[in-house]
Amino acid sequence: MQHIEQYQKPFLKYLERFTVHKEPQNLYQPINYILQLGGKRLRPILTLMTAEVFGATAEKAMDAALSIEVFHNFSLVHDDIMDDAPLRRGKETVHEKWNLNTGILSGDAMLIMAYQLFENYDSSTFQDLAKLFSKTALEVCEGQQYDIDFETRNDVTIEEYLKMIEYKTAVLVGAAMKMGAIVAKASDADQNAIYEFGRLLGIAFQLQDDYLDAFGNPETFGKQVGGDIIENKKTYLYLKTLELGTEADTVSLKTAMNNAELSHEDKVVSVKALFLKSGAAEATQNAVKTYTEKAFKVLETLNVDAAKKQGLLLFGEQLMNRRV
Amino acid sequence: MQHIEQYQKPFLKYLERFTVHKEPQNLYQPINYILQLGGKRLRPILTLMTAEVFGATAEKAMDAALSIEVFHNFSLVHDDIMDDAPLRRGKETVHEKWNLNTGILSGDAMLIMAYQLFENYDSSTFQDLAKLFSKTALEVCEGQQYDIDFETRNDVTIEEYLKMIEYKTAVLVGAAMKMGAIVAKASDADQNAIYEFGRLLGIAFQLQDDYLDAFGNPETFGKQVGGDIIENKKTYLYLKTLELGTEADTVSLKTAMNNAELSHEDKVVSVKALFLKSGAAEATQNAVKTYTEKAFKVLETLNVDAAKKQGLLLFGEQLMNRRV
Repeated sequence: MQHIEQYQKPFLKYLERFTVHKEPQNLYQPINYILQLGGKRLRPILTLMTAEVFGATAEKAMDAALSIEVFHNFSLVHDDIMDDAPLRRGKETVHEKWNLNTGILSGDAMLIMAYQLFENYDSSTFQDLAKLFSKTALEVCEGQQYDIDFETRNDVTIEEYLKMIEYKTAVLVGAAMKMGAIVAKASDADQNAIYEFGRLLGIAFQLQDDYLDAFGNPETFGKQVGGDIIENKKTYLYLKTLELGTEADTVSLKTAMNNAELSHEDKVVSVKALFLKSGAAEATQNAVKTYTEKAFKVLETLNVDAAKKQGLLLFGEQLMNRRV
Repeated sequence: MQHIEQYQKPFLKYLERFTVHKEPQNLYQPINYILQLGGKRLRPILTLMTAEVFGATAEKAMDAALSIEVFHNFSLVHDDIMDDAPLRRGKETVHEKWNLNTGILSGDAMLIMAYQLFENYDSSTFQDLAKLFSKTALEVCEGQQYDIDFETRNDVTIEEYLKMIEYKTAVLVGAAMKMGAIVAKASDADQNAIYEFGRLLGIAFQLQDDYLDAFGNPETFGKQVGGDIIENKKTYLYLKTLELGTEADTVSLKTAMNNAELSHEDKVVSVKALFLKSGAAEATQNAVKTYTEKAFKVLETLNVDAAKKQGLLLFGEQLMNRRV
């Protein structure tokens, strides 16, 4: 993806230098482990990119970017415990490789370390970053709680689902970009606009993820295609099928979801057919498009020159046109 | 205890007002529950008391005090998971009353909320408070990790044990007091001195706790007397017995600790006899005295009038002369 590589290298170098060699090792080794597990590092790159858009160097935004990445990994460590996940990026999760207590405690330490990464900024920038961080981090917790609550509810609305993915995923994208703007001391209006851009793009991204989980190319998607269906997840596709489908579609969907005797493969095939037939698949693609366009619309209000807007636009388009 | 009541009431009122009525309830109800479970609220009271010593109102220090209490309760929620504890202050622990995931996530939210409580201070005070908070919180995590590590080690030194209780317990006492000084904009010298006073008193307090766990009055101690012995905890009393006792004492101690056939009562009686015979009990009382005196010595350097020093002294003495 254009742009990404130019930020990825220096960020990874900075991340490498962050490796903690302190005692007690049983606290810090899991932190080094999860931070080196890989990933595209999209969130911190957005911080660096945004800092440059508003006239600061990427270097100046490096600590804020790293904070976002450390927080993101904190949430992965604790979420993996809650989801009882054995693997993360094809490797053992922290609580699997060590144990539950290590997962909890190392995660806690990462959350604190994420705040410490703001300490080298002047006190006004520090306060702005820490306030945004706290607000966002708490929303991410709320999103995770909604996600857990939804598992045992049968009356989740589309509106509630959208709020859940906004909190669990999108606000961190918005915050990552706003942090770049804060470090660059952009105006309040620009800070809020870029947050909005990131938040809307984050929602679009997550809806796209829901879509690709069912209809992505198995060879390039990275995760198991149909994973959400197998796990009976109430995704946007699922909820839209209930909304748009006929009564027969609804019955078929719930039957397929609850039929323990159906093989995974047959279940995925049946449910995908219903997603298509009901119009939910198309509606999901439309929603992705709508949120992306809303995000691009916000860009117009930004007080930066056209070339810089163009860069953000291009990045957004590449993100949204991914088939992987 | 003198002083305490005058701060306890307004603090409890402030805490009551902090009750969170936000959604999702499954995230915030456990937070309200643990914060209302009781306790003496010594740490936040120290913040209020110190603010007054340095000329600020207790009211101004209320948010900082509350942050200390919220953090302390965050650490209780996560520690109770790690210790698999069913009860806290005679009531169900959060992960028992709800579940593991709620315990983890509500704890995470409390850690974030503790930072948010600094947001109403000016940006320079905010940065000072948040920096001290992060440093302290990370040390508390390190202390907890050392404590876990020590469970499976047989070569823990007294020095290591003292570092563990310093990190796990004492630094938060120091930080609670320093926060009062920060809010009151005391000089750096006074801020550091009051931190040192709290830290030393915190170590004394924890050593006293070790002592009382074995030799306290069962009717007033609150916890089960001999609890540490029953759980084979490597406390100061235990480590000192290994240091000061004869070879026969060491053998007897390890035999008693590892003898699964011994009743709890007989085990406690045997081990306590060894604590006394070896001189470890006396050494522990001496250590409490030494740390307390060191703490009082630091008070002399404080730049406040004698009456205020006297108040801190009195509080320290009452804390250390407790038999409960």
